[in-house]
Amino acid sequence: MTKLQQTKGILFLVGIGPGDHRDMTARAIAVLRNCDIVVGYSRYIDLVQPFIEGKEVISSGMSREIERCSLAIAAACRGKNVALISSGDAGVYGMAGLALQLLSKKKLRDKIVVEVVAGVPVVNAAAARLGAPLMNDYAVISLSDLLTPWEVIVKRLTHAAQSDMVICIYNPRSAGRRRQIREAQAMLLQYREKNTVVGIARNVGREGESVTITTLGGMLRYKIDMLTVLIIGNSTTTLCAGAMLTPRGYKL
Amino acid sequence: MTKLQQTKGILFLVGIGPGDHRDMTARAIAVLRNCDIVVGYSRYIDLVQPFIEGKEVISSGMSREIERCSLAIAAACRGKNVALISSGDAGVYGMAGLALQLLSKKKLRDKIVVEVVAGVPVVNAAAARLGAPLMNDYAVISLSDLLTPWEVIVKRLTHAAQSDMVICIYNPRSAGRRRQIREAQAMLLQYREKNTVVGIARNVGREGESVTITTLGGMLRYKIDMLTVLIIGNSTTTLCAGAMLTPRGYKL
Repeated sequence: MTKLQQTKGILFLVGIGPGDHRDMTARAIAVLRNCDIVVGYSRYIDLVQPFIEGKEVISSGMSREIERCSLAIAAACRGKNVALISSGDAGVYGMAGLALQLLSKKKLRDKIVVEVVAGVPVVNAAAARLGAPLMNDYAVISLSDLLTPWEVIVKRLTHAAQSDMVICIYNPRSAGRRRQIREAQAMLLQYREKNTVVGIARNVGREGESVTITTLGGMLRYKIDMLTVLIIGNSTTTLCAGAMLTPRGYKL
Repeated sequence: MTKLQQTKGILFLVGIGPGDHRDMTARAIAVLRNCDIVVGYSRYIDLVQPFIEGKEVISSGMSREIERCSLAIAAACRGKNVALISSGDAGVYGMAGLALQLLSKKKLRDKIVVEVVAGVPVVNAAAARLGAPLMNDYAVISLSDLLTPWEVIVKRLTHAAQSDMVICIYNPRSAGRRRQIREAQAMLLQYREKNTVVGIARNVGREGESVTITTLGGMLRYKIDMLTVLIIGNSTTTLCAGAMLTPRGYKL
């Protein structure tokens, strides 16, 4: 008797971009349209609704990443093609890493096919709305100390500040985490001028999008929350016809 | 007599992603399909050929960015809708900043509409192919000292190395610039172990794509050129079932 060839399930780790469907990649859209099951944080599931109508959906609330990831892996192990979605890029503070870690821990890696589908990171979409603040070297740092000790974050911020790289800040503040952005600002002011150009982008690509250009000294006057990214300019960052610009060294 | 309303030309600064059409955003594809004129480095024009058939194209060779940018601006000032393309994200070592600088210098900013169209940065596409190396804080640094003094680059690398951020390296080596990657490696080895995990991605999303996972000590044994990006892991980066992974602090 011939054994039927078993086709492995595929786990796609999909970055859906910042939120606006036009910023999704063709590959992300195709994966969502063609998969069997979509798994994600309920807010992100809402963002991709037009592409997944009629599909099986597994969604849950904030900070239940491990649960969602385990459910997605289990479905792929049953032979399903599963899209586990993250906002922005699945590889930047998203679900790609957790999925690999869990697959390894559960010794299930060779049971399924895994594909990471890169998306436009939120900070790059924010930069596009602000102008061109990331034209020179930059650091990307999350202020959330839920998964990284605060001392480590401070050390990174301190080095980044001294290096004169542009600094992109994710997760600057949440309802229960209000101190970090104040401490970060105070630390940055030790190395950068008060009038350093700062871009604040909230809800990029989503309802209520707002983009503000201000200064390092003045930035705390604006609304900053979990859906905000900040871009702290380097010493050469300027306002250029209303846009935030970090020039490269072109001789014009 | 009623004066006809003059419609302003639009200059789109379009990131086309790493090269594979599936990694382009829906917005980038739509802009290319609908614009009047496409301007870009000839190699990138080839990459988007299917979307621009029959359109007017202005292309030129490498390092003629200022010329291309000026031609794109001039066309937009004549009322045309112009797509000036960059690979990856137009806002990361791309054309967005130069366009804003030139518009400001020529005092033409209010003559046209400008829109930056973010794309998947090459390094994020590389990360997806390698696994999930950018799940924690990272720095993006170009080794090209054509536009940034080498001392500034070394200072940034040194701080990034000490901060234990993952380090993404653009433009590691060209035909005429071979010393920088050796110096960078020597410097990084002062702060990171020889067996630090390093990902090397060449021609991501293009013909001849290759992806290698090696170590900081061994990385110079592999082919590294202008179409290569390197991702230097932090102290926690590991190999996880054949993939490069920088874990976040989830308790599993």
